[in-house]
Amino acid sequence: MVQMTISTKTRVGRSTREAILEAASRLIHVHGYNHTSLDDVLRESDVGKGNFYYHFKSKEELGYAILDQIIASFLAETLAPCFSDPEGRPLAQIRCFLDRVLEIQREQNCVGGCALGNLAAELSDVHEGFRSRLALVFSAWRERLTEALHEAHRRGDVGGDCRPEAVAHFLVAGLEGAILLTKLTKDIAVMEQCVGEMKRYLSIYELGA
Amino acid sequence: MVQMTISTKTRVGRSTREAILEAASRLIHVHGYNHTSLDDVLRESDVGKGNFYYHFKSKEELGYAILDQIIASFLAETLAPCFSDPEGRPLAQIRCFLDRVLEIQREQNCVGGCALGNLAAELSDVHEGFRSRLALVFSAWRERLTEALHEAHRRGDVGGDCRPEAVAHFLVAGLEGAILLTKLTKDIAVMEQCVGEMKRYLSIYELGA
Repeated sequence: MVQMTISTKTRVGRSTREAILEAASRLIHVHGYNHTSLDDVLRESDVGKGNFYYHFKSKEELGYAILDQIIASFLAETLAPCFSDPEGRPLAQIRCFLDRVLEIQREQNCVGGCALGNLAAELSDVHEGFRSRLALVFSAWRERLTEALHEAHRRGDVGGDCRPEAVAHFLVAGLEGAILLTKLTKDIAVMEQCVGEMKRYLSIYELGA
Repeated sequence: MVQMTISTKTRVGRSTREAILEAASRLIHVHGYNHTSLDDVLRESDVGKGNFYYHFKSKEELGYAILDQIIASFLAETLAPCFSDPEGRPLAQIRCFLDRVLEIQREQNCVGGCALGNLAAELSDVHEGFRSRLALVFSAWRERLTEALHEAHRRGDVGGDCRPEAVAHFLVAGLEGAILLTKLTKDIAVMEQCVGEMKRYLSIYELGA
């Protein structure tokens, strides 16, 4: 009976935490971190202030928890799947990833943009804690692409004039910029054109294609 | 004497308006539009509320005036100079423009990012008035590059496989993304690498180089 009560409390506790995270995440994605107040989060999640502080020390701690969720979901659901087959051809994996990012923007109806990019634009100059965490995930993203390009070079798929780190930086930049323009114009054709040009760009380095 | 009084009032009036614009512009560039309150603007510009409403109907009207300033300055000081010589070679003009954007980020010490891109990221989903105005200036920017690419084609500098509009979209996206990554990493080398890769990308289409 005691066991049951504890387990129920834990479940309820987890739900409350999740309700807060879910509401805050949605608000921050649309309105930004600074423009989302704790009161907005409490109202949207229907959670009292005392209950909030049982789960999070501050709005900042809540923000970091949301960032961790976005990062984990991006790495596991968007980035990793395209690179999961160790036998796969690296350039095909990169192209698969470009298409995947395009599809996500299509599914989102060009709304919301890139959650990581939005936070980077908003907070890089005003919040060092967010800036350094965001820099880490962008660095992991770039590293994954850099590795794929090194592997492509080992396999003889790209030439020695391909500087993997610079190419990876530009691919990340191109995607972030394309997502921003798509969010601005509300036109998925902009993103399609950009992804098409990114594939043309990649082909500069491709050997024996 | 009456004339003098009026002229003095006008000058003072203009200075007040400019003081408001200058303070608000600085605050919005760092903290975003929504997170900059009218009280912040009044405190920073040392202008009273009544005086503010003599010059602007609302925070929104102030925002549009700032946007108009940013747009005019971008078009006149960053974009146009590289394309001012009607005899200039269009691809060289585009490369000049890429270098110019890089230099501006270097001068800004990787702080602030692109004022237009920041506003587009913040407001595209929550403020239709800003979104449509921002879409117009990005469209003018892309159009300038598209025109240069058409001219390059007419001169036989690029091949028929170059789709000017798609290339122009990707150049704008690449720059916006590169500026964002530079703001995030605080490392101008990221921007240098991206601009280097954008030039490689442009060279895909170049004939007789």
